[in-house]
Amino acid sequence: MNKLINDPANVVSDALRGIAAAHPELHVDHENQIVRRGDAPVRGKVGLVSGGGSGHEPLHAGFVGPGMLDAACAGEVFTSPVPDQIVAATTAVDGGAGVLHVVKNYTGDVMNFEMAAELAEAETGVAVVAVVTDDDVAVQDSLYTAGRRGVGVTVLLEKIAGAAADQGRPLAEVADVARRVNANGRSMGVALTSCTVPAAGKPTFDLPDGQMELGIGIHGEPGRRRVPAAPAAEIAEMLLTPILADLDFTGGSGVIAFVNGMGATPQLELYLMYHEVAEILGKAGITVARSLVGSYITSLDMAGCSVTLLRADDDILRLWDAPVRTPALRWGA
Amino acid sequence: MNKLINDPANVVSDALRGIAAAHPELHVDHENQIVRRGDAPVRGKVGLVSGGGSGHEPLHAGFVGPGMLDAACAGEVFTSPVPDQIVAATTAVDGGAGVLHVVKNYTGDVMNFEMAAELAEAETGVAVVAVVTDDDVAVQDSLYTAGRRGVGVTVLLEKIAGAAADQGRPLAEVADVARRVNANGRSMGVALTSCTVPAAGKPTFDLPDGQMELGIGIHGEPGRRRVPAAPAAEIAEMLLTPILADLDFTGGSGVIAFVNGMGATPQLELYLMYHEVAEILGKAGITVARSLVGSYITSLDMAGCSVTLLRADDDILRLWDAPVRTPALRWGA
Repeated sequence: MNKLINDPANVVSDALRGIAAAHPELHVDHENQIVRRGDAPVRGKVGLVSGGGSGHEPLHAGFVGPGMLDAACAGEVFTSPVPDQIVAATTAVDGGAGVLHVVKNYTGDVMNFEMAAELAEAETGVAVVAVVTDDDVAVQDSLYTAGRRGVGVTVLLEKIAGAAADQGRPLAEVADVARRVNANGRSMGVALTSCTVPAAGKPTFDLPDGQMELGIGIHGEPGRRRVPAAPAAEIAEMLLTPILADLDFTGGSGVIAFVNGMGATPQLELYLMYHEVAEILGKAGITVARSLVGSYITSLDMAGCSVTLLRADDDILRLWDAPVRTPALRWGA
Repeated sequence: MNKLINDPANVVSDALRGIAAAHPELHVDHENQIVRRGDAPVRGKVGLVSGGGSGHEPLHAGFVGPGMLDAACAGEVFTSPVPDQIVAATTAVDGGAGVLHVVKNYTGDVMNFEMAAELAEAETGVAVVAVVTDDDVAVQDSLYTAGRRGVGVTVLLEKIAGAAADQGRPLAEVADVARRVNANGRSMGVALTSCTVPAAGKPTFDLPDGQMELGIGIHGEPGRRRVPAAPAAEIAEMLLTPILADLDFTGGSGVIAFVNGMGATPQLELYLMYHEVAEILGKAGITVARSLVGSYITSLDMAGCSVTLLRADDDILRLWDAPVRTPALRWGA
């Protein structure tokens, strides 16, 4: 195992110290492993809280800031945050307009966010609405999931719902935007290598050189099938075919096309993949309205990528374009 | 070899097609493999041109845009761009105030940029000044270098000199800023794995599990020595000790501290490393004025990191803070 870590048991708390040092505009609650906006709660604004297992950075702490999340709860690597963390984050960002929980569809996350919402409501009367993402078309049910897994659309949702909250929309409307994003987003990923969880010290799964895991989960959960390595153009087809079969992306205001790196894949390859994706979408008569290329929802040191398409409407595009100022996504502000 | 590519011979041109598709605000000259600002030349502004071998993305194409580079010349992987490319980029961004070449100190780059400057001056009369970066304290002379290698400081220099050009400073002053940045910046890197050049199809060097190459070059050139894997805190010491021995970073306006990922290292580890770096700097009485954590000058799929310190003055900090709008660095605009 070749990693830049100290004690494998402390990777998350050690990394949070680095986030605190590098981003003085954020407040890190080390006891609860929460990263929040330094100016939270913002009075009258719906608060956005997300979180999940660590190892997917910049998701979620890298998306904390004006125009996106108010707080992120960092679980241990690939492990859900506990309800106490989520309660602390929820009450810390409640500006009186309620709090939206953005939850990826993994059993532990869903359960702990549900429990936290009940506790926070009971303790402080804060109104909480949860939106669960489940955009991964690869598999129905999985190692840690009932239903589809929540993956790349989570990044887009946090940006878009964050902008809606920033505009002063009420909780029910921010939640509607979030549900609309999830309902119109689909993803699929591929792994070229396994990842290695620091505490385990060895690869999560065995993937021989020259093989790929198609439909990989972000924790290394099995995908659809093991296939021989293929050129990028064919990989793009393998990822997009199930996505395009699942939802009609033609018409409307076009799509937001997102090519995401799994953590160990160079940007050169991601742009190369984006070109292949754009070619296929062009041939399918799908208009790309916006794009995002980079490693935003990762799986530690896994090589590979995922593709997410979001069918946009004009409201979604305006919210996407709105200013955002976080460590990992920043424009217009 | 597990890569998201098609024909290994075309990775750079294929990736440039992706950059063109994802960033409509940039203009890609596919024949010359140049990425430039869509609005270049900017009349009356000094133009900034950089470039080098591909495989270090986002350096350099990801830094093209207002407040940073006007154009980047993409060589083949780990191969200098040719003079014709550089001439084409130089004339394309000449707004009448001359052009600064930002060149990393590798023999091929230095030679080809020099030849291009002469050709461009002879052909069009454009005034060209070149600034060569040589911030890597690891080794004196190396596989492709006479003197020190140019690494992480190049990223900071392109941002800071780009801001100086944006303010309307004349060519001599922009070049002075660039030289000041290089003179006050020092770097050192470590590899935990080799990288694999697509056309080679196998790792550039052999690094057994549990070993690190200290002082690695960004093309996998040998460093200072092979050492056993160590905790992050010790690695931070190994990287910072030679840097701090080479230049006094105390006093003044503090430093810009930059922890850079080599391409396959997760952000979780980079933030963890940043914490260790910040601790050491604190104990050494060095004030961190600004920081940057992320993968900005990479070596394909190499795992590892580098640390760059830049001794700043108030002018440098103001230029660092100025608005920038590029694919990879973006704030205030």
